[in-house]
Amino acid sequence: MSTVKAAVLTAYEKPLELREYPALTEAGPGEALVRVEIAGICGTDVHLWLGQLSVPLPVILGHETVGRLEVLGEGLTHDWRGNPLSAGDRVAWASSIVCGECYYCRVKRQPTRCLSRKAYGISYCADTAPHLRGGYAQQIHLRAGTAIFRLPDDLPSDAVVGAGCALATAIHGIERCPVEWGDSVIVQGTGPVGLAAIAVAKQAGATRILAIGGPPHRLELARRFGADGTIDIAEVTGIEERRKLALAFTGGFGADVVIECVGYPDAVNEGIDLPRDGGKFLVLGQYANAGNISFNPHIITRKQLIVQGSWGFEPRHVDRGLRLLEIPHWQRLFADEITARFPLDQANEALETVKGWRAGKTVLIP
Amino acid sequence: MSTVKAAVLTAYEKPLELREYPALTEAGPGEALVRVEIAGICGTDVHLWLGQLSVPLPVILGHETVGRLEVLGEGLTHDWRGNPLSAGDRVAWASSIVCGECYYCRVKRQPTRCLSRKAYGISYCADTAPHLRGGYAQQIHLRAGTAIFRLPDDLPSDAVVGAGCALATAIHGIERCPVEWGDSVIVQGTGPVGLAAIAVAKQAGATRILAIGGPPHRLELARRFGADGTIDIAEVTGIEERRKLALAFTGGFGADVVIECVGYPDAVNEGIDLPRDGGKFLVLGQYANAGNISFNPHIITRKQLIVQGSWGFEPRHVDRGLRLLEIPHWQRLFADEITARFPLDQANEALETVKGWRAGKTVLIP
Amino acid sequence: MSTVKAAVLTAYEKPLELREYPALTEAGPGEALVRVEIAGICGTDVHLWLGQLSVPLPVILGHETVGRLEVLGEGLTHDWRGNPLSAGDRVAWASSIVCGECYYCRVKRQPTRCLSRKAYGISYCADTAPHLRGGYAQQIHLRAGTAIFRLPDDLPSDAVVGAGCALATAIHGIERCPVEWGDSVIVQGTGPVGLAAIAVAKQAGATRILAIGGPPHRLELARRFGADGTIDIAEVTGIEERRKLALAFTGGFGADVVIECVGYPDAVNEGIDLPRDGGKFLVLGQYANAGNISFNPHIITRKQLIVQGSWGFEPRHVDRGLRLLEIPHWQRLFADEITARFPLDQANEALETVKGWRAGKTVLIP
Amino acid sequence: MSTVKAAVLTAYEKPLELREYPALTEAGPGEALVRVEIAGICGTDVHLWLGQLSVPLPVILGHETVGRLEVLGEGLTHDWRGNPLSAGDRVAWASSIVCGECYYCRVKRQPTRCLSRKAYGISYCADTAPHLRGGYAQQIHLRAGTAIFRLPDDLPSDAVVGAGCALATAIHGIERCPVEWGDSVIVQGTGPVGLAAIAVAKQAGATRILAIGGPPHRLELARRFGADGTIDIAEVTGIEERRKLALAFTGGFGADVVIECVGYPDAVNEGIDLPRDGGKFLVLGQYANAGNISFNPHIITRKQLIVQGSWGFEPRHVDRGLRLLEIPHWQRLFADEITARFPLDQANEALETVKGWRAGKTVLIP
Repeated sequence: MSTVKAAVLTAYEKPLELREYPALTEAGPGEALVRVEIAGICGTDVHLWLGQLSVPLPVILGHETVGRLEVLGEGLTHDWRGNPLSAGDRVAWASSIVCGECYYCRVKRQPTRCLSRKAYGISYCADTAPHLRGGYAQQIHLRAGTAIFRLPDDLPSDAVVGAGCALATAIHGIERCPVEWGDSVIVQGTGPVGLAAIAVAKQAGATRILAIGGPPHRLELARRFGADGTIDIAEVTGIEERRKLALAFTGGFGADVVIECVGYPDAVNEGIDLPRDGGKFLVLGQYANAGNISFNPHIITRKQLIVQGSWGFEPRHVDRGLRLLEIPHWQRLFADEITARFPLDQANEALETVKGWRAGKTVLIP
Repeated sequence: MSTVKAAVLTAYEKPLELREYPALTEAGPGEALVRVEIAGICGTDVHLWLGQLSVPLPVILGHETVGRLEVLGEGLTHDWRGNPLSAGDRVAWASSIVCGECYYCRVKRQPTRCLSRKAYGISYCADTAPHLRGGYAQQIHLRAGTAIFRLPDDLPSDAVVGAGCALATAIHGIERCPVEWGDSVIVQGTGPVGLAAIAVAKQAGATRILAIGGPPHRLELARRFGADGTIDIAEVTGIEERRKLALAFTGGFGADVVIECVGYPDAVNEGIDLPRDGGKFLVLGQYANAGNISFNPHIITRKQLIVQGSWGFEPRHVDRGLRLLEIPHWQRLFADEITARFPLDQANEALETVKGWRAGKTVLIP
Repeated sequence: MSTVKAAVLTAYEKPLELREYPALTEAGPGEALVRVEIAGICGTDVHLWLGQLSVPLPVILGHETVGRLEVLGEGLTHDWRGNPLSAGDRVAWASSIVCGECYYCRVKRQPTRCLSRKAYGISYCADTAPHLRGGYAQQIHLRAGTAIFRLPDDLPSDAVVGAGCALATAIHGIERCPVEWGDSVIVQGTGPVGLAAIAVAKQAGATRILAIGGPPHRLELARRFGADGTIDIAEVTGIEERRKLALAFTGGFGADVVIECVGYPDAVNEGIDLPRDGGKFLVLGQYANAGNISFNPHIITRKQLIVQGSWGFEPRHVDRGLRLLEIPHWQRLFADEITARFPLDQANEALETVKGWRAGKTVLIP
Repeated sequence: MSTVKAAVLTAYEKPLELREYPALTEAGPGEALVRVEIAGICGTDVHLWLGQLSVPLPVILGHETVGRLEVLGEGLTHDWRGNPLSAGDRVAWASSIVCGECYYCRVKRQPTRCLSRKAYGISYCADTAPHLRGGYAQQIHLRAGTAIFRLPDDLPSDAVVGAGCALATAIHGIERCPVEWGDSVIVQGTGPVGLAAIAVAKQAGATRILAIGGPPHRLELARRFGADGTIDIAEVTGIEERRKLALAFTGGFGADVVIECVGYPDAVNEGIDLPRDGGKFLVLGQYANAGNISFNPHIITRKQLIVQGSWGFEPRHVDRGLRLLEIPHWQRLFADEITARFPLDQANEALETVKGWRAGKTVLIP
């Protein structure tokens, strides 16, 4: 093979273009070449496509990827966990690389806020060699320092990509805003991050979980993931009505922890009313700047709330996520979340499927 | 003495009335009668006066009080700390009583959110016997269960009332949103809560403290309390300009902890830009519901902030505050904060003085 | 019924005596009379019997009890959770009462270390009226201030007494020394506290749990409760051999959390070698003073361990335990732990059964 | 200069030898050559000298060093904080290098327990090129990855070496076992770590600090550092008597935090009795394995203690320490701690001075 195909975002709101790039055969020190097996479509990809987040076009999208190691650069002998690596190994990797040296990396130990963080499928212009820095392609070039994880044989790629970046995002968020065993939890949003948040809350021992979202096929997923109750926002359209149902579900006072995984700013106003006094509100979904809301800060003081943000994730959250996926129960649920598969040349149909909430999880098979 | 005088709020935005009530001579089990020596005027009293918080009129204001025990009801033998009590002892007390039995008191250990919490000087109608349940009076009747603190002889009443409820409020807030030694801290607001927050942050070892407030005589107080720098909001009127100064003061990235002690909702929008990524924002001043702001929740996710509320305080915060006041440095600063003293029949002048920020701390000497 | 029977510890190491006391018919303010339905035999009862803890003989043992309310004293209208109470209600209660006023209750919020804490079945001399202050009796007299819990109809008494004080003890211990989801956990000891610790660790999301204990029927219980592996100390008798197995089980470095639920001091020396560096060691079983060990403190510094103690429990831990028991899975397991039932006049046989580890959980049916 | 002198430990318990090594003039990528200005003698150096910790002899001792950059290897352009570096800069550095890749570095974020951690002045055999890997020498060769800190002009080298590794050790320990403002603290030991612990506790707002140690000149230092009281162990020789004094000093119940900085294992038995119930005990001084004690683990359960270990420190603790030293009060105290200075050829006299507790802090001026 002398060329590889990639689906490239060349202009916002336009169809991705299928382009060919020279196949790579050599990797520098610490680098790796990976043959892509499966690439997840993340909701963020839709935001990127629509131009809601600025990126250096053209970009090969795709930051949730599993593939097989083809070439290992000098010095790349072990994965992030210390397991030996060799060509042919099935691997996943953390989508971002940080500098490890800046104020946030070092002094404040908040590497997700690294001043020069770059993410595969987002931050790399495809016009610049080595071009292949996104998952919507047959081959991907991993920089030295990428946190690579060799996948255990009994951990299917479907589970890993089904969980996608949503699982690591939820793990990081809930690390910052812990769910304790016995807690009541409300999850706003039943997209991939919402489902992952349900999974993590359940694993952490939450005993009452309410999911607010839709459409019905996703609420059904939420229940399978562990939600004890669901509210369909298309059915119960009034915020006040939803609030009453949610409070009733959590014993009248509100939930110990509320996790916003929606993305629309209004969800923050709906969500902040749902924790009990002294409870926690994890604002996890406001990844893109989607504008202002009319907000009353008095509620924070009066209810002595903890409102917590969380951004992206670190390699150790990927590690924790992959360990969670070794539990057969979760492995199956996340793998089954994938209900739509497209070849690379139908990447646009795949993006449309995600945009329209028409599937569980949508993936490309390059 | 067969009657006692009290300054009574009978109608919002009207002058307090000086009324007389029958002097009390007997206390029921666990209750106490106290001869008031000095009563602080809190900013909250101004809010109450202006009708910004609803109370059961007529009300004898005053929830920051020191006096001498006159009568101890049966079974009242020791103060909250276990020290013996007798008539003549100089005492202060926590301004609120909680039920100790509700969901918030018991299950969630958040007694400041007790479902039936009542505060002296706020929650008691003066038309109902025993009438005397506020500090703007010559005598006060303390319910059984009030957390009374016998004051050490070398702790002047001025220091206790100079610190007022602001100190316990700041202590509670900073307990929820800790300042670590070496932290950089920005305090918004230089009223009594702001000054107390500076004191607590300083005692906790903050090494860079910036106070944003005014007028100049209060910024001078802020510097005496430990602020390493101040910004006069009347002088630097642009929020963006203040932001630049604040970030420069804290090394470019923002403060480890920002403490809002202002009360105007807009301060929350100004303040949320001032912590570094991963930093903390304590929303301590939004005690009254002063309306909505146009707010962008994306910042919480992106900066992975901790936004923390805190409401009132518990007896143990009063205890901690009184211990802080045993340190001569703080004792002197809080005592010296009192710069205006009025007799009871000038309670309206006292309120006007507080409303107009014309003094450090204003007190009544009934 | 004019008299009630009770099994009374009159002298250490001697058989309990069956005595009769006047049946109580009246309860003072806040007090309650309860007809005992089922009383658990705790390992502590064996310690008391053998004189390893000093108590005011004669004592009616029994601090794990479920019964029906017969008489409610004035003012006793609601249970600890705020649910209404009436005669005939099936109830359990926290075994200890604290003063709520001392240094530990108030200032340090450590009520389990209350300076005047007293426990039913342990701290009350049966010669003093009202005599009936232990569970090994047909009737029990509850003091005002006892934390009573009305049991939901669908929560069987067997589950509550099967869990006994062990569950609340484990909940408190793990609150102080938290298990996070995904943690590896080693539990030393498979008595009631060990099983309860497994349950709580499992509910909190531990993904690798190793139980070290015996005999085989208790290891079988441990596996049913959620242990992924067990080591029988009668089979693997060498501490070094057990250590190797335990480290292998936890990936070579040791467990994130080790929970000692044994009681023999030597278990502390075995256990402290089992956490990974920076891990946690909860010393939960050293309830009685069973003497000294030869101990090397260097390990604490070098492995930068957290070694945590925990004593008894508070009503809120009973509350949390009862909520856990509402989960059918746990309810069934704890109820099934009861494998030996004795009438009151066979209390000595019951104690012997517990002493000899011959049953799961042993109970009296008075 | 074509050779550099170094004081070399060639055999345990023997005098150090003054040897000459070829002066280095070139540094590989990321490496640095530093001209040593001042090297602290740490108590650990005495342990090494006496063979109580095993090292690869011959070793150039010295892990507390300040010097001037002579040569910067390729790519070494900035210090750990991101400040630009150039030849002639005065610098200090973290004494250890970790791999950043092992289980402890990555997964558990406990780099002080890195599986391949190496420390200057301890872990490097002087027979192996580049030989110069300890501070008791005129020149030192720093490996790539060393956390170098450019010292501000107004921070004297004396303060940095006076604080030595003791300050970073205390900062790390107290990070793991926090002192809160208002806490009472007992520090066992008044060597460099004890004094540093007093400094950090004081900066963190402790309001009652008791130091137990000696000899008198060090207790005088302890008082200057902030101890409110001291006990001379040569004067009050009975442990029980010291315990009574310590409890009386802390209000009868014991201290909120006790910090062991002694090193003798018996100090752990003395110290564990000194925290209040529910208090904390930081075992910071048991750096070397000095054997077993007869220990009663019951106290951990009964007093529900937190016993915390801490090992070494990370670069961020050095960073925090250097910031503390920017406060003039601490800068002066730590600089003044140096009371004995020796040239390199009197390194043995320097070690003897430290061994005999005959000085505040002892340093070499190579």
